Amino acid sequence: MILGRCAACKSQRKRCPSDCVFSPYFPPDNPERFASVQKIYGASKVEKMLQELPPHLRAHAADVLCFEAQCRIQDPVYGCVGIISQLHQQIQDAERQLAMTQAQLAIYNSNNIIVQQLSQIPQIEENASNFNILGQFQNGPFTQAP
Amino acid sequence: MILGRCAACKSQRKRCPSDCVFSPYFPPDNPERFASVQKIYGASKVEKMLQELPPHLRAHAADVLCFEAQCRIQDPVYGCVGIISQLHQQIQDAERQLAMTQAQLAIYNSNNIIVQQLSQIPQIEENASNFNILGQFQNGPFTQAP
Repeated sequence: MILGRCAACKSQRKRCPSDCVFSPYFPPDNPERFASVQKIYGASKVEKMLQELPPHLRAHAADVLCFEAQCRIQDPVYGCVGIISQLHQQIQDAERQLAMTQAQLAIYNSNNIIVQQLSQIPQIEENASNFNILGQFQNGPFTQAP
Repeated sequence: MILGRCAACKSQRKRCPSDCVFSPYFPPDNPERFASVQKIYGASKVEKMLQELPPHLRAHAADVLCFEAQCRIQDPVYGCVGIISQLHQQIQDAERQLAMTQAQLAIYNSNNIIVQQLSQIPQIEENASNFNILGQFQNGPFTQAP
């Protein structure tokens, strides 16, 4: 329950009606919240934007308007679009890192096939070597022995 | 060179002074550009925001204000913060994919060490086998032959 006028009505020095469009989203204990949207959009624009929305979406809209207004107060040139630029940069970095890791993985995959093939060579050589040893036994001193 | 009144002065039905703060950024051939910022911020707020900035930053600020206004017209609840949410989601996806690829790479790295170690085993066994064969030769039929 909000006692007294909301932050918007208090700031505009007017009576806060029971159906005030600001009241649910701009409580009197947080005057900075309304001050930021008033500075950037002006009270009448905020009122109009909230009134044009169905009631169940107004809380989200009020939160986002406050966020955008605070971003613009902090960064008067880029506002929250500065965050969008930073996030784009972060995505590019993450995608570049991902591409590098995937390329490294592809190299490991191909190397792994080569290593597996190479690991079979000593077995083949051993088999061939055993065959020769048997050949020596078969055609060597035993068969040629008197 | 801009002929006639700028889009802002034309919209406000007033004379466009030579030092008009809107004129360089709101040309008369693009009335929608001014209409969008007027709808969201109002002409007086845009004028104030531009005037508070040094002239070399005003073009960027005007572009960003237009972008933010157009975003809010398209999405009256989330505005350009909707883009920020999407980008956060995209970053989370990219980071998740990166973590998975790095984990896969770590498995390949450890497997590769095991494969390399295993690939040395046939060589060790072959050496051991040759040693036994030599042992047979040394202590076998030749030495035990009469």
